[in-house]
Amino acid sequence: MKNEQVLLAQYPEGMPQDDTFKYEDIDVAEPGDNEVQVESIYISVDPYMRGRMSQADSYVEPFEIGQPIESHIVGKVINSNSDQFQEGDIVVGMLPWKRINTVNEEKVDKVSNTDVPLHLYLSTLGLTGQTAYHGLLNIGQPKPDETVVVSAASGAVGAVVGQIAKLKGARVVGIAGGDKKVNYLTEELGFDAGVDYKKDDFAEALANAVPNGVDVYYENVGGEIGDEVFKHLNRHARIPVCGTISNYNHPEDDQGPRIQSTLIKKQAMMRGFLVAEFADDFEHAGKELAQWIQEGKIKTKVSIEEGFDKLPQAFRNLFTGDNFGKQVVKVSDAE
Amino acid sequence: MKNEQVLLAQYPEGMPQDDTFKYEDIDVAEPGDNEVQVESIYISVDPYMRGRMSQADSYVEPFEIGQPIESHIVGKVINSNSDQFQEGDIVVGMLPWKRINTVNEEKVDKVSNTDVPLHLYLSTLGLTGQTAYHGLLNIGQPKPDETVVVSAASGAVGAVVGQIAKLKGARVVGIAGGDKKVNYLTEELGFDAGVDYKKDDFAEALANAVPNGVDVYYENVGGEIGDEVFKHLNRHARIPVCGTISNYNHPEDDQGPRIQSTLIKKQAMMRGFLVAEFADDFEHAGKELAQWIQEGKIKTKVSIEEGFDKLPQAFRNLFTGDNFGKQVVKVSDAE
Repeated sequence: MKNEQVLLAQYPEGMPQDDTFKYEDIDVAEPGDNEVQVESIYISVDPYMRGRMSQADSYVEPFEIGQPIESHIVGKVINSNSDQFQEGDIVVGMLPWKRINTVNEEKVDKVSNTDVPLHLYLSTLGLTGQTAYHGLLNIGQPKPDETVVVSAASGAVGAVVGQIAKLKGARVVGIAGGDKKVNYLTEELGFDAGVDYKKDDFAEALANAVPNGVDVYYENVGGEIGDEVFKHLNRHARIPVCGTISNYNHPEDDQGPRIQSTLIKKQAMMRGFLVAEFADDFEHAGKELAQWIQEGKIKTKVSIEEGFDKLPQAFRNLFTGDNFGKQVVKVSDAE
Repeated sequence: MKNEQVLLAQYPEGMPQDDTFKYEDIDVAEPGDNEVQVESIYISVDPYMRGRMSQADSYVEPFEIGQPIESHIVGKVINSNSDQFQEGDIVVGMLPWKRINTVNEEKVDKVSNTDVPLHLYLSTLGLTGQTAYHGLLNIGQPKPDETVVVSAASGAVGAVVGQIAKLKGARVVGIAGGDKKVNYLTEELGFDAGVDYKKDDFAEALANAVPNGVDVYYENVGGEIGDEVFKHLNRHARIPVCGTISNYNHPEDDQGPRIQSTLIKKQAMMRGFLVAEFADDFEHAGKELAQWIQEGKIKTKVSIEEGFDKLPQAFRNLFTGDNFGKQVVKVSDAE
């Protein structure tokens, strides 16, 4: 049986290129005691992984050169030496980028429901859904009729943030790039307004979209987009800071207006977070998210690249604005 | 009886100069019903007043050109048409810069204790003490053995912040400018360390002063000093943002590293505040502060300019680093 893996070849400068990654043919390892063989079906690519491709101080351990890149993967158990799994089980876990992983049973969890599209376990029913849920509800705490703005609004996290904010009765404004994504926010996800940051009139359009100011800004991008939103903060605004995708490839250039005087004027609060802080509440949140999905209240757009060879391209899509919704790579038809 | 007032002559560009202010001889107004005549004894000058000398969006109403500047003033009642005050009462209130004010009884409060130096009602027993107390305890929430850093540490707010933090069992590091101020922190106020931001080795000295990182940074100055402290934040650090005195005269130049990625890496929280938010708790805090003062646990350094004509100079002292401790102007010997 053919196996293959993707290693980190070198730490990239700026945007990762093809020479960041190295494909390698390998053997399939036989499962030892309490191990399972898992065939990858969907592999997740996520912006935070760029931080692991650097040795700079970060909140995640860097990938090692010459070692496989890893991310969340949905797969099927094809061979089991574990009491907890049998062939055919669908599982999810943080796994190396291999077509077939042989891992201890503790590295994967069985998914609770296979009647939903399995890639949802990499998005709304996985950590991105949890990230949206906890950042918005535990930090942002939107109240009915308040205005919630979310950036990267058509992305995996942003789309869920906006839909939950709508469920909570807020006015929701999404920032995204290009007509297609902006229209998606209002026409398919039910946002009250969408603003295109790529247009020359972005500042004016944003101002028009938030006539009552901004009570919650769910920050996914940073940079000049964040700067513009900060001009509209209301008194006692809350800013959950989830990501700063605009600077991931060039953190040294992330210079702009300092925020302190704005926070004083508006008596506003900014809080950076990692979803792991809320692990004790994952189970509760997961049930609520699953219920909203089943009721059709939360939709998930997925952008699927097909083929194990498309992993580098799919990863780059995250930073060029070429992806739309949660980016995954389908590497097997085993679903 | 001679009276005199100080008007705002024009909005300053950058540092206020003598032509920002206009002195004018006026008459003393007779008190009408429920009014009192108050002779000014101590007049407060405070950094936030620079924001009122501008029409830019701020959290305080701008002063009007041709109208008296106002600030907190401690004075003595010299004539009363109010049931609530009698001649000789010592009062404090937000009043116009006049030698003698004639105002409604509701504009002033009688001080509770005249056995302490009266200028304390402009500092530790006034709004600056409240500002230190609530920013530190309600937002910063230092725990025993945590490290608290405060900037402008020898200033009116900073000195109280550091002393309260010590009372709560924290390791306290103050940032100030010049040997005299830095030595004052450790030798007289009991801080664990002082760091001189004017020295070339500031960054290294700060790093050495916070070997266990920074859990609470009480922000009074912003700019490059704040940037340097942010490099040492611990996980779940809290940053009460009280002031950004480094940029008050040139807010348009306040550019530096954006903070979002740091907040994520450290899962840290920044919160701008105004002391008025905590008005419901002023009475409780005032009693606690007064007790600490009487027990000798909180010391207050005051910098007194003598003479009504010294108001502009005293105000400028706030921005040049020439003052030391709470800056007040003594304008009468009526104490």
